[in-house]
Amino acid sequence: MRAIGGKEDKINTEEKDLQRSHGGRGQGKLFVVGIGPGHPLDRTRRAEIAIRQSEVIAGYTKYIELVDDICCGKELISTGMTQEVDRCRMALKKAAEGKTVALISSGDAGIYGMAGLAIELAEAEGLDVPIEVVPGVSAANAAGGLLGAPLALDFATISLSDLLVPWQMIRQRLEAVAAADLACALYNPKSKKRVTQLEEAAEIFRKHRPGATPVGVCDSIGLAEQSVIISDLDNFMKEKIAMRTIIVIGSSGTRVIRGRMVTPRGYQI
Amino acid sequence: MRAIGGKEDKINTEEKDLQRSHGGRGQGKLFVVGIGPGHPLDRTRRAEIAIRQSEVIAGYTKYIELVDDICCGKELISTGMTQEVDRCRMALKKAAEGKTVALISSGDAGIYGMAGLAIELAEAEGLDVPIEVVPGVSAANAAGGLLGAPLALDFATISLSDLLVPWQMIRQRLEAVAAADLACALYNPKSKKRVTQLEEAAEIFRKHRPGATPVGVCDSIGLAEQSVIISDLDNFMKEKIAMRTIIVIGSSGTRVIRGRMVTPRGYQI
Repeated sequence: MRAIGGKEDKINTEEKDLQRSHGGRGQGKLFVVGIGPGHPLDRTRRAEIAIRQSEVIAGYTKYIELVDDICCGKELISTGMTQEVDRCRMALKKAAEGKTVALISSGDAGIYGMAGLAIELAEAEGLDVPIEVVPGVSAANAAGGLLGAPLALDFATISLSDLLVPWQMIRQRLEAVAAADLACALYNPKSKKRVTQLEEAAEIFRKHRPGATPVGVCDSIGLAEQSVIISDLDNFMKEKIAMRTIIVIGSSGTRVIRGRMVTPRGYQI
Repeated sequence: MRAIGGKEDKINTEEKDLQRSHGGRGQGKLFVVGIGPGHPLDRTRRAEIAIRQSEVIAGYTKYIELVDDICCGKELISTGMTQEVDRCRMALKKAAEGKTVALISSGDAGIYGMAGLAIELAEAEGLDVPIEVVPGVSAANAAGGLLGAPLALDFATISLSDLLVPWQMIRQRLEAVAAADLACALYNPKSKKRVTQLEEAAEIFRKHRPGATPVGVCDSIGLAEQSVIISDLDNFMKEKIAMRTIIVIGSSGTRVIRGRMVTPRGYQI
């Protein structure tokens, strides 16, 4: 078979439609944009259009650096890692003043990102600003692709950061996920000050799965220093693990095939 | 602050680097490409480059239609929904013959996609083909963005299709996830022949969460007929639900704010 259609200009037309739907300057809008795991090629076109047409870009300093190729000449609201609420409030205020604003999150804006906070804060402060969430390739998706296909069947995503969620709740979730034989992507596994949570998490999974269960350790995804390691439950803690590392724990069915981590879906081959 | 850098040509250079790394024609390669939820603007640049530089495109007929704007003149291997193994085998064979081949999945290639099968099958058939998995915006990510931010905290992804996984295993996972108060994205909720699984799933969640818990129902994401409905555990079964509908069940913390479904991360605002 050969392709018949010639819709080469479909995207350009749709980009223009999208731009019109965002309203002209003077009518404010907030995009909450997931920029993907880090590399410019992992952004969606929708994310790039939202950033390009925004007058103001708000985000954590390091994430703004990841989109600086398309931010030239724009007003930047760049704040530190723990200042999410301030950053979000400033972005909403700019949008309420009539600006088009892109508030950026790494990965997907809706997964441990800023989308929910923007909606909550708009309501709390009575700001009548249209908010559009632009999804992106999440860190777990990207880690999965680098490792092979460990998340090909049912899985869970759990953050080990207990800054906003009580550790007892996180432990309970780890226990449930480990017992139900779900593959699991762990976000924020440890920081300089917070190291015991990952040890406890590993112990919980070892209670329910063999020590040889494959575990993937992906660090600095999409950046020059990216590293991708396939280890196992007994040994993965020896790898370099930091705040932005994504750890993928296999289910009982996960195997290493040709150096890739795969959770077979059960096809007869 | 103003942006300082001028890296406007960064992407073009990287695209060229990427193309070189894929080797010239004659040296085969298989890309397993996630094309996102459906709309061309939700594809990543990496996905589009992989498809554009492939000589052969393999995929389920309906998914190939979603990329026909960039498939013009290419050889197509297009098969029906249940012929995943045949399609994958044909794609691998073409790559082994020296072609650059893109095997496409909707959403993310690694999440209920074709990435794992390609790796398994290459091993089983002894085909020494380089395989690169190109991640995409998964259907759950896209549904989350359309609904607001229901997956902003820990969540699980469970497919209700018992074609490849025993229903008892799926039930056990639903029980664990419901009890651990995880938000949950349900894939493949029902088909024409398979309707009881969703009823059982809803019952399991109702045992653990109030009937007023927000539930999002997203159908035909990214297509012209897309629909996005926010309902609740007691009522969502009344909505139109089919094979490609994504259902997002909130956790106990999920709320509806300004008509959007949000799971607050716990920020003090």
